Amino acid sequence: MIKTEEIKFKTHGDGHIVDITDTLSKKIAESGLDSGTVTVFTPSATSALTTIEYEPGLLQDMPQLMEKLIPSKVPYHHDQTWHDGNGFSHLRAALIGPDITIPFSHGTLHLGTWQQVVFLDFDNRNRNRKLIVQIMGE
Amino acid sequence: MIKTEEIKFKTHGDGHIVDITDTLSKKIAESGLDSGTVTVFTPSATSALTTIEYEPGLLQDMPQLMEKLIPSKVPYHHDQTWHDGNGFSHLRAALIGPDITIPFSHGTLHLGTWQQVVFLDFDNRNRNRKLIVQIMGE
Amino acid sequence: MIKTEEIKFKTHGDGHIVDITDTLSKKIAESGLDSGTVTVFTPSATSALTTIEYEPGLLQDMPQLMEKLIPSKVPYHHDQTWHDGNGFSHLRAALIGPDITIPFSHGTLHLGTWQQVVFLDFDNRNRNRKLIVQIMGE
Repeated sequence: MIKTEEIKFKTHGDGHIVDITDTLSKKIAESGLDSGTVTVFTPSATSALTTIEYEPGLLQDMPQLMEKLIPSKVPYHHDQTWHDGNGFSHLRAALIGPDITIPFSHGTLHLGTWQQVVFLDFDNRNRNRKLIVQIMGE
Repeated sequence: MIKTEEIKFKTHGDGHIVDITDTLSKKIAESGLDSGTVTVFTPSATSALTTIEYEPGLLQDMPQLMEKLIPSKVPYHHDQTWHDGNGFSHLRAALIGPDITIPFSHGTLHLGTWQQVVFLDFDNRNRNRKLIVQIMGE
Repeated sequence: MIKTEEIKFKTHGDGHIVDITDTLSKKIAESGLDSGTVTVFTPSATSALTTIEYEPGLLQDMPQLMEKLIPSKVPYHHDQTWHDGNGFSHLRAALIGPDITIPFSHGTLHLGTWQQVVFLDFDNRNRNRKLIVQIMGE
């Protein structure tokens, strides 16, 4: 059985990290399914999904890492195309990736104790974001 | 229901970026399935899959980013094993990853307006590439 | 049909790379399924999954790349929270990602000849690790 849901929220860009773990857990509980996978996908080229321990230190470390690997203040060819100044956002999103697939059993996600599912908004402005949450199971 | 397909094409290596979005959309339409996931996998250790806005600027930015993070002109231990000079290709592929899973509904992929599914060939020579496209749905 | 299994093993941290390909192949054979996907997930915030050619050169190159991109010997805010000194481990894990999904047909994974599925333990100490292996197919 397949259930396709959406999650919507506002972000402020600049590496904003949103913890979506509880929302996913609730969607799985509501689906009534016992076991399967949930695939979360961001239909966007300037944001990404991964897991991290959602604690104040890493919420600073992760954006600083991204700024080091893919600086925001250098010119990119993308910005010559669109002049929106978010070439770095696109590159960070392509590096981390737009999808994550997590197994669940007995209606519970197989996450570690200190592991949260997070949405990373790399864009350089406020956005209204929508994620696709597809639950496939039995 | 599960359908397993292949996509084949030629690449010229050196970070060649191939937009496979239309091919995936066609495979999903042909499957006759309404909703589910498509998993694309590259059976290769020197290439990867992600999404990006497929526009001329980023087609230059992405290879330049890879060259900065994982330079092609420095020695790698891998090259001492095989002497094929593509240690950097393997590392770039492992960093981005060989798989992507995208949900679809009503026969249409849940992609953003400016988001394309791309194959990145990091090898240092021309290749004949094959991707596995597995569609699972109902 | 969905089968959820676990793999358990010991690691010594510090970028330890474990080849889990044969174990996955065996799990698929045991499932009796012909075609589908296997999703492997690490329920941990300091480890990750990808594919690589498992050969001695890359087993040195990959940890060296991680040390270059995300050094272990610089301070991270995470370490001020927990004082366990593994902020770099968390960042490396978030960059590579905790999940991988691989299609199989005729009971065989669609991997390349020189491509192995690997678990990367980025933690700074010995760990007992458990992976979730979920096989979905027909």
